[in-house]
Amino acid sequence: MPRQVDHPKRRADIVDAVWRLIVRHGLEAVTMRHVAAEAGVSLGQVQHYFASKDELLMLALERVSEELGARIGACIAESAESGPRSLVRAVLVEMLPLDEQRRTEAHVAFAFLARAAVVPALAEVLRAGYDQFRDFLTEQIEVGQRLGQVAADRDARREAVALLAMLDGLTAHALVEHHSPAEARLALELHLNDLFGAAC
Amino acid sequence: MPRQVDHPKRRADIVDAVWRLIVRHGLEAVTMRHVAAEAGVSLGQVQHYFASKDELLMLALERVSEELGARIGACIAESAESGPRSLVRAVLVEMLPLDEQRRTEAHVAFAFLARAAVVPALAEVLRAGYDQFRDFLTEQIEVGQRLGQVAADRDARREAVALLAMLDGLTAHALVEHHSPAEARLALELHLNDLFGAAC
Repeated sequence: MPRQVDHPKRRADIVDAVWRLIVRHGLEAVTMRHVAAEAGVSLGQVQHYFASKDELLMLALERVSEELGARIGACIAESAESGPRSLVRAVLVEMLPLDEQRRTEAHVAFAFLARAAVVPALAEVLRAGYDQFRDFLTEQIEVGQRLGQVAADRDARREAVALLAMLDGLTAHALVEHHSPAEARLALELHLNDLFGAAC
Repeated sequence: MPRQVDHPKRRADIVDAVWRLIVRHGLEAVTMRHVAAEAGVSLGQVQHYFASKDELLMLALERVSEELGARIGACIAESAESGPRSLVRAVLVEMLPLDEQRRTEAHVAFAFLARAAVVPALAEVLRAGYDQFRDFLTEQIEVGQRLGQVAADRDARREAVALLAMLDGLTAHALVEHHSPAEARLALELHLNDLFGAAC
């Protein structure tokens, strides 16, 4: 009788292995062979689930998006009542590498960002996510303007672009330990105070 | 009679080849063999000048620092008389990928930032540069405070951390074409208006 194989679990185990390799050694370390060794399966089994390294990488990126998306969704549900400032703060802090889980996600996301600078197809996938996030921030800043918390003469879209850039820069600099994640958080709070300062 | 070899030029040509590979294909493409092919020299010649790939990468990073450092030095010399706000703006804009030269430098610097997230020795080199740059910005913000341009209750160091993060984030997002370099510049100007706004 053939062994029962839990396919979704095995796929997930392989993507886990990709994450671990990225965190420890960067994207360069992600080869089909290394992934097989890290996941404790044969090369053929990796190839059975993933046609190429690029497919594997895309799946790993999708998982970052999904996990982050779920946590951000939860944040929004919790903080929606508390107004745009708290909501934006909660969502941005959720993305800083403040614990092991977020540090791992930041590592994976950042490795992809670097690779996207030279792989147009990957840049396209990333841009879709950034655009969506920028639009969410723009909308919340506009709500802040309607509530009188954000100065009416600010360009909401440009503020959103700046906020997103600061978030990614703070994350990158925390990953190379230029500053601590806690310091990154304080810098972000300070910027939000400027933006939503009218209410204070 | 043996041919005369222009050693400094050949070393520079090899580092040029590393830059071109990084811009086109990312750090993953930088192998001693690829570099030799790109520079039009033999593998042995590359090995004659550089003991390892890591040494080659370090040299390429040093060249970014040197070229950027020289231009920033020129900026400072030109803008020092015009006060901290103009000086900070001039220096930061010099680092945005607004033309081909700066785009190439940003590509190389960003590729190293990503790699430094998993290579502690590289992170150490980068941190030294970031620390120096943050201290320069902190000092200029403090000058702004003494001149009454920056609010006295701001934490200059934290503002410098935020500014540096925003610069790198805007650069990264311009490289993946989430926004244009011109839009990155506007977002940066906006942030500087907030910081040095008291003078307006």
